[in-house]
Amino acid sequence: MASEKQQKAIDLSHHLSDLSRARITSPLKGLAKYYGRPGLISLAGGLPSENYFPFSSVGGEILAPDSFTLNPSEQGSSLSWLWKLFGRSSKEKTSTITIPRFTDSPDQVNLATALQYGTATGLPQLQKFVQEFVDKVYQPAYSDCTIMVHIGNTDGWSRVMQTIMNPGEMFLTEEWTYPSALASAKPHGMHPYPIAMDKDGMSSADLRKVLSEWNENVRGCKRPHVMYTVPIGQNPCGSTMGAARKKEIYDICAEYDIIIVEDDPYFFLQQGEYIPKEDRRSEQMNNMNDADWLSTLAPSFLKFDYQGRVIRLDTFSKYIAPGSRLGWHTCNPMFAERLERQGETSAQAPCGFGQSLITQTLLTWKYDGYLRWLHGLAVQYKTRRDFFIDCLAEEFHLERSATYVSFWKGLDVYDAYAKPRKRFMSEKSALGAKMFSFVPPSSGMFIWMRLHFENHPAYRSQDEDEESLEIQLWTKIAEGGVLISPGWFFAADTQHPPTPDTEGHFRISFSNSDLETLKKAVQIFAKTTKDFFKQ
Amino acid sequence: MASEKQQKAIDLSHHLSDLSRARITSPLKGLAKYYGRPGLISLAGGLPSENYFPFSSVGGEILAPDSFTLNPSEQGSSLSWLWKLFGRSSKEKTSTITIPRFTDSPDQVNLATALQYGTATGLPQLQKFVQEFVDKVYQPAYSDCTIMVHIGNTDGWSRVMQTIMNPGEMFLTEEWTYPSALASAKPHGMHPYPIAMDKDGMSSADLRKVLSEWNENVRGCKRPHVMYTVPIGQNPCGSTMGAARKKEIYDICAEYDIIIVEDDPYFFLQQGEYIPKEDRRSEQMNNMNDADWLSTLAPSFLKFDYQGRVIRLDTFSKYIAPGSRLGWHTCNPMFAERLERQGETSAQAPCGFGQSLITQTLLTWKYDGYLRWLHGLAVQYKTRRDFFIDCLAEEFHLERSATYVSFWKGLDVYDAYAKPRKRFMSEKSALGAKMFSFVPPSSGMFIWMRLHFENHPAYRSQDEDEESLEIQLWTKIAEGGVLISPGWFFAADTQHPPTPDTEGHFRISFSNSDLETLKKAVQIFAKTTKDFFKQ
Repeated sequence: MASEKQQKAIDLSHHLSDLSRARITSPLKGLAKYYGRPGLISLAGGLPSENYFPFSSVGGEILAPDSFTLNPSEQGSSLSWLWKLFGRSSKEKTSTITIPRFTDSPDQVNLATALQYGTATGLPQLQKFVQEFVDKVYQPAYSDCTIMVHIGNTDGWSRVMQTIMNPGEMFLTEEWTYPSALASAKPHGMHPYPIAMDKDGMSSADLRKVLSEWNENVRGCKRPHVMYTVPIGQNPCGSTMGAARKKEIYDICAEYDIIIVEDDPYFFLQQGEYIPKEDRRSEQMNNMNDADWLSTLAPSFLKFDYQGRVIRLDTFSKYIAPGSRLGWHTCNPMFAERLERQGETSAQAPCGFGQSLITQTLLTWKYDGYLRWLHGLAVQYKTRRDFFIDCLAEEFHLERSATYVSFWKGLDVYDAYAKPRKRFMSEKSALGAKMFSFVPPSSGMFIWMRLHFENHPAYRSQDEDEESLEIQLWTKIAEGGVLISPGWFFAADTQHPPTPDTEGHFRISFSNSDLETLKKAVQIFAKTTKDFFKQ
Repeated sequence: MASEKQQKAIDLSHHLSDLSRARITSPLKGLAKYYGRPGLISLAGGLPSENYFPFSSVGGEILAPDSFTLNPSEQGSSLSWLWKLFGRSSKEKTSTITIPRFTDSPDQVNLATALQYGTATGLPQLQKFVQEFVDKVYQPAYSDCTIMVHIGNTDGWSRVMQTIMNPGEMFLTEEWTYPSALASAKPHGMHPYPIAMDKDGMSSADLRKVLSEWNENVRGCKRPHVMYTVPIGQNPCGSTMGAARKKEIYDICAEYDIIIVEDDPYFFLQQGEYIPKEDRRSEQMNNMNDADWLSTLAPSFLKFDYQGRVIRLDTFSKYIAPGSRLGWHTCNPMFAERLERQGETSAQAPCGFGQSLITQTLLTWKYDGYLRWLHGLAVQYKTRRDFFIDCLAEEFHLERSATYVSFWKGLDVYDAYAKPRKRFMSEKSALGAKMFSFVPPSSGMFIWMRLHFENHPAYRSQDEDEESLEIQLWTKIAEGGVLISPGWFFAADTQHPPTPDTEGHFRISFSNSDLETLKKAVQIFAKTTKDFFKQ
């Protein structure tokens, strides 16, 4: 492995789009060799004096990295600790960070630099922190792996897409995926080609099949050379792609010369298997130290990337705040340079207020503190997921079945029925209509449900002009006071009209509301759904 | 006028690019009618809980809006007040702003909203402030003029360009212009067509000539339908386009159906005419109240825009800080809607940290305070410009001539010679080589110089492989310790190789350094230039 690490990225410049090739090298490069010379006076840029910034300092009260417990069960069997955290009256452990206009230390962030024009690569201190973080956590398999900041993963993908794809091309993706990724690509005439999924996410078998059988004449475009994937906390399905599947997919991509764009906003929200409340005993994940916890997580594609063909997208949106509008590409230096040129002619550097507050927080917490923070959040999301599914189990009769068709094959699928009157009745025949099924997510923020509209009285007898059953039920739930996401948002195969198979899904997020509200939402969802199936 | 204001924007949708037409309407729109319903529980988005943001508050020490004096001359004839401002020990009047995680008032900014995912239109409070500011200050001539935030004017132009131009098109621009605007356009195959300039900026006569004589077969592309202009503090020339010229250009654009993209980062840095130190007596601009000062400024194109064909770009970069990465489009609602869709699939909303700190500052200062702040900055820049040119006058013999060729015709041009030994010698024949000429800028941050390399011994005898005289002198000045911008950066006519006419220019910024350093820079520049012409 050590020798592999010496290896630099291979030449992948043939993947660059025409647009990206045409991007001119910054004219400022001619000036670059003079930058930073001691005593040099720069009258070259349109830079206002730092004394004209109306802020003499900015700062904030930041939470301690251990604000969220790793051992909720130790704090009493009730969830009172969690309930309390959501209340405004809760006592938070905070410390103050301050970013002054000027500092003498190059290790400290100051406004004179952070709020001034800078390079599109962002604050040097942030770059350094992130580079070390990536090296320690994702362990890229080649030596010249490079960081380039962006304005969040949606922007990150949008930049990458324009950097490595030409209009008219297709890209590989999971059959269900993030709608904004498709919405960014579509106007450029770049369309997804869906790959089937199974319990580990994208199917390597189907990927190989699609690539080996690709016929340019039939498909109307050449074989894709780009893959867009959300491998962890897969949006919307909640699956987690482990090391073995990643290695398989990486090897296929190396064979077919495909660039893997790994959009991974939920990496640290891995939650492990859902264990029903009655069987839940030990909280393995929670009692670990941070390093051990980290070692249990499914790795990034970077770990297998001995050639430099992965462009990984990271964001602070889920770990600091969505309003951070700050994240980064990790990729080979050739792609990073093109992405930097693109940054220069669009958003330039990310916002200096956000960069400085986030960077100062990270410098205060240090690597160990940030890891502890992430671990704490992971426990929160695991607890939320468990709580949400526990609520479903209170409202529905959930029947586990290990054999299932479609991409849930091989997983424990939970089928939901109305609760039978007699509490412990276990005869399947006594249950009413199977209303929906789901697999508890192993990471991320979402429960993905398949609705069994085939058991609905109106199924297949619908008028063509009528709204689909998915929209009908979705609307009733919204009118009842709960907003969820209809499944059709997430279909990668947008070329074809919705089929019964794509119509019957919901994505429900358990990430945001407090627990009391989540419980109430499940009750409304349950009542509305049961009524709907009784029609 | 009142009746004109009732008028709404005309239909200009035929200007939309293929890319922009193909942008899908946000799928979230289907959910929109439920947003904001009292008591609605949203489990639709991938939103982390606001309690997971590690900031319980952010804030800052902000300067008072009247931190910069309007009457520098009252504070003694020396510039001591100005020198002091740049020292760190100066006493600043500040107040504290705090943005808490939660607030109950809808008029206050809170982190729970500002750091959460939101719409691409940004914080409602910012939108409201900016809309009112635009109405009061720029006074658009039609009634449904709309605000849409962006990530600074470079991003703003980049978005506009992709929204209203197709690859292969040309756009009209000043013959000298902002290099990043060209760098953004070039990879998309969108090229500038330069229009000649005169003392008021872009020439309306040349514009009409170019448009009326446009021959698709000769030019190789159809007549441009987009104009990119920096009308105030023109970059790099420093000219200011007044009301009369704007009206002329607007009318031509209405006649030829052209969309005007008004990139106006220096609007409030209008400085009026330069008066040589010995003649300088009253400081008219400075003794005005803020409203009177505002009324002296050249207006925006919006004031003449009765059809809605102007897309104005504003930014906080020069008035708050470049690191704000925050600005806005002002345009008709149809363009605003397309720009919003583009925002959704790229940067989404601007950074929440920046938005909340800037918005809270503006809410604290209020409209009147912000106007006072802008007025104070205008006086600063005027003082800087005067100081810089005064320094040039100390180092060179400056000869004013009212008759001049090229685009400076009709203006007071300053020609620079080495100082004659005998101080008051006025015989022109006794002066050495004319080294450079400039017109004192009436707005913005830059002095634009034309170098008279025709008076250099090596002129036209140069080896082809040799660096141009512009680069040779530029390099010597950089080696001497002063970085300025070479003129070729700013040539719109990048299709052709540099000519002697494009080679001999420098742009020097007086915006950033403290006055002592500016003085030192002028001394280095003067010594190096004089030595160079002596060769």
